[in-house]
Amino acid sequence: MSSKTSKGSFNPKDYGIPEHFQHYPGDPAEDFVGPFFYYREEGICYTAFRVQPHHCNMSGSTHGGILMSFADYCLCMAAFTEEMETVVTVNCNSDFIGPSREGDLIIGETEITRQGKNIAFTRCRLLVDDQPVLTASGVIKLFRKW
Amino acid sequence: MSSKTSKGSFNPKDYGIPEHFQHYPGDPAEDFVGPFFYYREEGICYTAFRVQPHHCNMSGSTHGGILMSFADYCLCMAAFTEEMETVVTVNCNSDFIGPSREGDLIIGETEITRQGKNIAFTRCRLLVDDQPVLTASGVIKLFRKW
Amino acid sequence: MSSKTSKGSFNPKDYGIPEHFQHYPGDPAEDFVGPFFYYREEGICYTAFRVQPHHCNMSGSTHGGILMSFADYCLCMAAFTEEMETVVTVNCNSDFIGPSREGDLIIGETEITRQGKNIAFTRCRLLVDDQPVLTASGVIKLFRKW
Amino acid sequence: MSSKTSKGSFNPKDYGIPEHFQHYPGDPAEDFVGPFFYYREEGICYTAFRVQPHHCNMSGSTHGGILMSFADYCLCMAAFTEEMETVVTVNCNSDFIGPSREGDLIIGETEITRQGKNIAFTRCRLLVDDQPVLTASGVIKLFRKW
Repeated sequence: MSSKTSKGSFNPKDYGIPEHFQHYPGDPAEDFVGPFFYYREEGICYTAFRVQPHHCNMSGSTHGGILMSFADYCLCMAAFTEEMETVVTVNCNSDFIGPSREGDLIIGETEITRQGKNIAFTRCRLLVDDQPVLTASGVIKLFRKW
Repeated sequence: MSSKTSKGSFNPKDYGIPEHFQHYPGDPAEDFVGPFFYYREEGICYTAFRVQPHHCNMSGSTHGGILMSFADYCLCMAAFTEEMETVVTVNCNSDFIGPSREGDLIIGETEITRQGKNIAFTRCRLLVDDQPVLTASGVIKLFRKW
Repeated sequence: MSSKTSKGSFNPKDYGIPEHFQHYPGDPAEDFVGPFFYYREEGICYTAFRVQPHHCNMSGSTHGGILMSFADYCLCMAAFTEEMETVVTVNCNSDFIGPSREGDLIIGETEITRQGKNIAFTRCRLLVDDQPVLTASGVIKLFRKW
Repeated sequence: MSSKTSKGSFNPKDYGIPEHFQHYPGDPAEDFVGPFFYYREEGICYTAFRVQPHHCNMSGSTHGGILMSFADYCLCMAAFTEEMETVVTVNCNSDFIGPSREGDLIIGETEITRQGKNIAFTRCRLLVDDQPVLTASGVIKLFRKW
């Protein structure tokens, strides 16, 4: 479940995740907690994460901190467009609205509600089998390339 | 840095954390992301976490998701008093107010702002060398033993 | 701009608000801060509010507290379905993402992201001329009629 | 209960509020929803608000929107120090933790958890007779005079 590609990246197939999702390499913590995958389409950033045993609490549910780590990835990846050197979370608010557990494929759908010069606002829903698991919103600081 | 005790628990000394902090065993995700340690004194729940390389993003700062995982632990442990069977996070809001990085010892201070019958409200500050790193607040659902 | 109907209610026409919006009578604070109007369609609760001079701060923008009062109305009205005796806000998180000012018609679009037995989660966007002004999410406690 | 002074300001005595609290004049919405009063001491911004009938919902409790309006005032006044031209709320998160009603004197205690160059983070507790009513945290954008 953890084969790295030659580029130090992860393969979505190893996690039963469709191949149009890709891995963004280089973040040690994201790869440690995840791995997480994404693709963009028509203004929405789609993300994917497979829940494994070490992501769960003692009652077998996905741990809240793991879900917020994935939500943070979702909120940041949506804001991390081509013009950005990097992005940093300023505020993140999460509502835990439904259950998820080991083996589940969690899909994130994240939109930019507003992209300013220095700050973007983003909002995501995490879903398992189209049922909502978590909603989150983020205030994201933007560091532009130019 | 990861010696387990015979009880399947972690030793704060292995992380350079004072020995009056203790580990709450049994949560696979917390042990995977952390480990995290705590003790209670006069209504405050104190917590500790040592930042290691795999907790950091590509610029060497502690990853936001890792910080929120630790904040979630802080908010829940404060509400998880003797009368509780278990507790579950309903809402968590986090402000990322200062930097932290590899090697830092993050100390959490968490208070219960109100404990109702079914819901507790808790609030924490995470500090490195007494400088604030993150503040968070939580709405925590309580499942009482009796 | 403040003609009450014989039912102690407000008329949307007096505020240049389309007549399919209605007033929910009986809440002194909502009528004092607003008035606010709503209708429901296909799972979405639509709301309307006309910004007047006394709703603005000294620079002529709609005051943040007024916007959050309207957002609270939006989040609660969405959860306040036929089965409810009353509803109470437990947590409300607001992102101030764009400007609005005197004379603007603010339209709210609120969805229930999950309705449990005792708690609903709702999420709204406030818009002026289809441009986002504020997004908010709420944890709403439900008191059911039966 | 609404005598204005010759400076277009409000007198705390008219609301049974101690005289070391002062009014910050010039914000139409704050005066309409409030009035609100404040003073600063040793890094804490103290604020005061008397709940009147038009601030309450139909069950006689202080309306959530009114409480958030006061919380917004608290969070902003703490950040609005001498060096600031103006301040603007970017994010506000509120937990409704206890009851308040007509006639109550609500006291706010607000601290700056971090003041950066362009953004401050502030945190408040609202109390009635030392019992907590609401906690809130804010991300506040700073516009400095120089």
